[in-house]
Amino acid sequence: MLKEKLENVRQESPLIHNITNYVTVNDCANILLACGASPIMSDDTEEVEEITSICGGLNINIGTLNQRTIESMLLAGKKANQLKHPVVLDPVGAGASKLRTETSHQLLKQVKFTVIRGNISEIKTIAIGEGSTKGVDANVADCITEENLDEAVKFAKEFAKKMEAVIAITGAIDIVADSNKAYIIRNGNPMMSKITGTGCMLTAMTTAYIVANPDRELEAAAAAVCAMGLCGELAYDRLNCYDGNSTYRNYIIDEIFNLDGDKLERGAKYEVR
Amino acid sequence: MLKEKLENVRQESPLIHNITNYVTVNDCANILLACGASPIMSDDTEEVEEITSICGGLNINIGTLNQRTIESMLLAGKKANQLKHPVVLDPVGAGASKLRTETSHQLLKQVKFTVIRGNISEIKTIAIGEGSTKGVDANVADCITEENLDEAVKFAKEFAKKMEAVIAITGAIDIVADSNKAYIIRNGNPMMSKITGTGCMLTAMTTAYIVANPDRELEAAAAAVCAMGLCGELAYDRLNCYDGNSTYRNYIIDEIFNLDGDKLERGAKYEVR
Amino acid sequence: MLKEKLENVRQESPLIHNITNYVTVNDCANILLACGASPIMSDDTEEVEEITSICGGLNINIGTLNQRTIESMLLAGKKANQLKHPVVLDPVGAGASKLRTETSHQLLKQVKFTVIRGNISEIKTIAIGEGSTKGVDANVADCITEENLDEAVKFAKEFAKKMEAVIAITGAIDIVADSNKAYIIRNGNPMMSKITGTGCMLTAMTTAYIVANPDRELEAAAAAVCAMGLCGELAYDRLNCYDGNSTYRNYIIDEIFNLDGDKLERGAKYEVR
Repeated sequence: MLKEKLENVRQESPLIHNITNYVTVNDCANILLACGASPIMSDDTEEVEEITSICGGLNINIGTLNQRTIESMLLAGKKANQLKHPVVLDPVGAGASKLRTETSHQLLKQVKFTVIRGNISEIKTIAIGEGSTKGVDANVADCITEENLDEAVKFAKEFAKKMEAVIAITGAIDIVADSNKAYIIRNGNPMMSKITGTGCMLTAMTTAYIVANPDRELEAAAAAVCAMGLCGELAYDRLNCYDGNSTYRNYIIDEIFNLDGDKLERGAKYEVR
Repeated sequence: MLKEKLENVRQESPLIHNITNYVTVNDCANILLACGASPIMSDDTEEVEEITSICGGLNINIGTLNQRTIESMLLAGKKANQLKHPVVLDPVGAGASKLRTETSHQLLKQVKFTVIRGNISEIKTIAIGEGSTKGVDANVADCITEENLDEAVKFAKEFAKKMEAVIAITGAIDIVADSNKAYIIRNGNPMMSKITGTGCMLTAMTTAYIVANPDRELEAAAAAVCAMGLCGELAYDRLNCYDGNSTYRNYIIDEIFNLDGDKLERGAKYEVR
Repeated sequence: MLKEKLENVRQESPLIHNITNYVTVNDCANILLACGASPIMSDDTEEVEEITSICGGLNINIGTLNQRTIESMLLAGKKANQLKHPVVLDPVGAGASKLRTETSHQLLKQVKFTVIRGNISEIKTIAIGEGSTKGVDANVADCITEENLDEAVKFAKEFAKKMEAVIAITGAIDIVADSNKAYIIRNGNPMMSKITGTGCMLTAMTTAYIVANPDRELEAAAAAVCAMGLCGELAYDRLNCYDGNSTYRNYIIDEIFNLDGDKLERGAKYEVR
């Protein structure tokens, strides 16, 4: 089931329009290529509608937003909606500044998103205004644990229902939910938080999975989250005692490049609630 | 012959001004350092003329163009022309949006370029308005094959004549042509298309080769294209079964770093038509 | 002594606000994570004051400055001063253009910096208007050698006194000075100059060291400079004959990731004058 989601990406090679931050943009481009998709980055108001029109889907990441790119995000998002292209949101740092929180709300109001992916603090912020984001990382107080998992799943489903979108909350335990069903995913490695951009890369890749698997949004998003976490595990196993977070970043992208459907199916650790 | 082109870059260590996209800019800086040149990136209208004045050449790449940087490209390009510095154009995604196509035309009209490097779709777009760019990658329908090679060479020479520039069309087979002579280059590896920025890196490096080899534009550009393709082959040979596109990117830059004139001379696969 | 400086960074995990260039921004984020800190990048005038307020310190790097980000640097710098957060300046390319030189002066006039780190040409430019910057690299004529070291130390101390800041001048020999005392540091490897961003990464990491070691600015900055140089040595030792500057970049970040206080204490090569 996850297997075909991955294979469809390699088959379709969807072209993904990214309006994203300048910190992790290169890694996002390379992971899109690694998973079988094609990236294009474009953020000028003069061209974003046209660029999004030739793509299969749009990835909006507010990581280093500015006045100019916010306008581009809105223009591209609305255009993608008109064309019925999937649009995915990564509300990086929502809660860390009024600009990020308000931009997230403005985007959610004016653009229909297929998937919203963030850490728990970011998602809480946009859902209930209560996340306590520590910069671009989740606040420990917010973390999803085995103890509060049922509550978190309920929260994710309710927010998914409200937004009519798949909600992906990633962290030590990941939740990918629509209004009815949630995947609880336990792939990944703690060292992934020591690399900049694992979240951004996942969101970019999720966009590709969604585009290549129309009408299977929940499963496609879950497959992308499993793929990222599994590759985090496989890449970790490759590290020797001299390697650190920079080599780890490279190996994660490499593992995504080499991942096939069978390996994903075997390695994915999830349950459905 | 190629050998001395490379050695001149290491000898001269030209300073290259880059107005380029934020996706692959780090790789462009590192490959310039790897080949023996020095990079400076600067894109504000207030300083680009001054920055280009202290450099040996200018690399203009429209990969993530915006209104502000387009003006900078024009200012810097004209200044470089005045100073008789070589200027190289990478019309990334020309054909993918009106903004990119028109900016390419505006640049070609207002700035004299020494070399124009792109994939076949981009070059066709700016030459005859007929390329069918798939985002930032060439459309398969446009690809240069052994069957249409003669025709493509003729096209490149004619466009070179019209532009009074060296035209470098890169893909599975590369063509580097002026109005009289074309290098057909068969270095490279298909996996290079699975890394973001091999084209951008090549254009940056070509600028360095051109600056360090005055009045030998055609040979210098051909040497740069051979060097990139050869390093794509050598880097591929280093990959093990766990490596993917991220490690491949690092290894290509590493191979450029370690390339010397003799290795280039031995490994270059080209014919002249 | 250096040992605890490093350990405090891992202990405190300071959140660092970076307004930095788009060339090396990813490496800056990863090295901050590698040393135990957390990065956030934000450069819009609408949010920089708020973002800097939730951080422990601010890193201002003018590498690809533009009108919009210059305003953000000033706003964030003043806010950080109000909050008594440490602010570190990297005047990349000061001397290469009037915009860079004047922006450096404007920043120094309006913002109180805790540390200023640059190569000798950049520091000379901002101190006495006499550096002869070659793009973003130091001019050979300016270089600090054993012969002019005493003079350079005197210059650094005097400039430190004038600015009431720690001055870090890095190159083959590094000087980290306040008005009374200078660390002369002989760690590092010449190949570090073949990677883009070693300076930027060091400045980012220095900010983290300063934040985690309040009231020990000089020692904290010296520890960061020793750590960077030492990791440049250790990473160099890992290189095989096929590796080049791209792998070297990864290995340096990896070594920072794996560095502990004891290794730093043993490997640091410095004297105090």
